[in-house]
Amino acid sequence: MEQRLSVITLGVQDLEKSRTFYEKGLGWKVSPSSNEHIILFQIGGMVLSLFSKRELEKDVGLKIEPGFSGITLAYIARNEEEVRDVLNKAEKAGGEIVKSAQKVFWGGYSGYFTDPDGYPFEVAWNPYWPLDDKGNVNVS
Amino acid sequence: MEQRLSVITLGVQDLEKSRTFYEKGLGWKVSPSSNEHIILFQIGGMVLSLFSKRELEKDVGLKIEPGFSGITLAYIARNEEEVRDVLNKAEKAGGEIVKSAQKVFWGGYSGYFTDPDGYPFEVAWNPYWPLDDKGNVNVS
Repeated sequence: MEQRLSVITLGVQDLEKSRTFYEKGLGWKVSPSSNEHIILFQIGGMVLSLFSKRELEKDVGLKIEPGFSGITLAYIARNEEEVRDVLNKAEKAGGEIVKSAQKVFWGGYSGYFTDPDGYPFEVAWNPYWPLDDKGNVNVS
Repeated sequence: MEQRLSVITLGVQDLEKSRTFYEKGLGWKVSPSSNEHIILFQIGGMVLSLFSKRELEKDVGLKIEPGFSGITLAYIARNEEEVRDVLNKAEKAGGEIVKSAQKVFWGGYSGYFTDPDGYPFEVAWNPYWPLDDKGNVNVS
């Protein structure tokens, strides 16, 4: 097994609503490989996939329970200003700010929004994790 | 906002148990930037982070609920044999096979395991999503 992952799938209640949040709200470009059942976004060497909750339940064979299960996704911003900008953008698009941008004990600056299905996204600036030109993080 | 994500964080009950699953079980190398509070794995240009559930709840400000919330992570394998190999590896390491490797309607071959905290990972071969040398997927 190689040390990598390829896809993050979010089971969503309303595919069009979620597509609009990521596409129009956050400004991401939908992949041409998307179709009426699945919306894909290229994120670096991985894919973020939006898929109907009902279909995802069938595929995995597990029922989806409401609430936060303990997985978060994070966007590392290039500076504190970008953290605020991204959170504002998410809020305007209908996301909920669950933690406003603030200095955090480990030396960074961070906040959280939730997407239309309540999935939490951290937006953080981390002085110890510089990004390369393509936005890759390297901790290896 | 750039079109990318940087970190996938899994809130875990037992940091050492989860570290062992990913490190010894799946064979991944722990990042030297890890410490007693957080275990990091470089995955392409992103980071998979294991963090205590209690600390993650405090950081996000949301309580973690048991069960599957609708986020899955997927590893795209290079062929059907690798799908079976990875699922076997995960099972030997204490993961649970929630769906055994099988041909799926969209033309691929896929199964799911859950990690020690019940987070579901799909392991799939997808003939329409070839991987490059580094294991990057490109749907753009």
